[in-house]
Amino acid sequence: MSRRVLGVDPGTVCTGWGVVEMVGGSLFHLAHGTIRSSANDGPGSRLRRIHSELQKIIAAHEPREMSLERVFFGRNSQSALKLGEVRGVALLAAAENDLPVHEYSSAEIKLAIVGYGQATKEQVQKMVAFLLKLPGRLPGDAADALGTAICYLHQSTFRGRVEGAPREKTASR
Amino acid sequence: MSRRVLGVDPGTVCTGWGVVEMVGGSLFHLAHGTIRSSANDGPGSRLRRIHSELQKIIAAHEPREMSLERVFFGRNSQSALKLGEVRGVALLAAAENDLPVHEYSSAEIKLAIVGYGQATKEQVQKMVAFLLKLPGRLPGDAADALGTAICYLHQSTFRGRVEGAPREKTASR
Repeated sequence: MSRRVLGVDPGTVCTGWGVVEMVGGSLFHLAHGTIRSSANDGPGSRLRRIHSELQKIIAAHEPREMSLERVFFGRNSQSALKLGEVRGVALLAAAENDLPVHEYSSAEIKLAIVGYGQATKEQVQKMVAFLLKLPGRLPGDAADALGTAICYLHQSTFRGRVEGAPREKTASR
Repeated sequence: MSRRVLGVDPGTVCTGWGVVEMVGGSLFHLAHGTIRSSANDGPGSRLRRIHSELQKIIAAHEPREMSLERVFFGRNSQSALKLGEVRGVALLAAAENDLPVHEYSSAEIKLAIVGYGQATKEQVQKMVAFLLKLPGRLPGDAADALGTAICYLHQSTFRGRVEGAPREKTASR
């Protein structure tokens, strides 16, 4: 059984993306990249570019699901509003292509990738490259996006195993 | 000269919209409505509905510009993130149809419509209906959207007059 996931790390300046496939229990890297906004772009053309690039990526790599990094903002509601706009067009692209969306916090992703929820950005970059057998250094945004996809694949596989586990252990309750 | 504007009041549950035209110095109401989210909709299908309804409204009424209510959140960044998602698909629909977007705060809109930045929602509803010669009571979200469109038309007309005013008065500087 194979499962192909598009991971997205939405950002107002750079939106990272990566496509990962799990076949059996093994992870395979298919593609990754960064959608960059030009400093000259207004909000509308920036969002239009992110939406149309995500549409092209989905058409080219045919993922069946999307995994998104869920961000928490302390009190900076203006940054949250701007990031929400990018999330909006990413969620729209997923819905237009009937991709279910799964969301994970940064701590959940770090825990799944590095085994430690407070891991640094560099540790995530190195571990994502190691898990996907990629040589060299990954750009930070794309590493986060690939990490988000791997986090979903790990968690859903683990959950599947638990749900599918023999019932004897819990039948005594 | 005539100018046709789509006003949008984005919301996570209800998104109000209204199309207003200014011909010479007179305002004309063309259409208004509310895009409602069903309680059963997930975020993706909610955003998809708002985006596709706005696309249909733009195709049907052919506005040349969009006017959006700009919202400030105190410290509630989670609400800002959710509202940002709706703003994102509204800004995308504008960009896909080459509509320039103008934004006004609630206080600017109230000042333009009622003449008082602290006006109540009911005062805005009544004044919008009066300015557009509409009988009966307007739904709150649609009244806000129509008010946002009128605010832009008033402000840009006023600015046009000032910019086009005789230069003698300022030439002495």
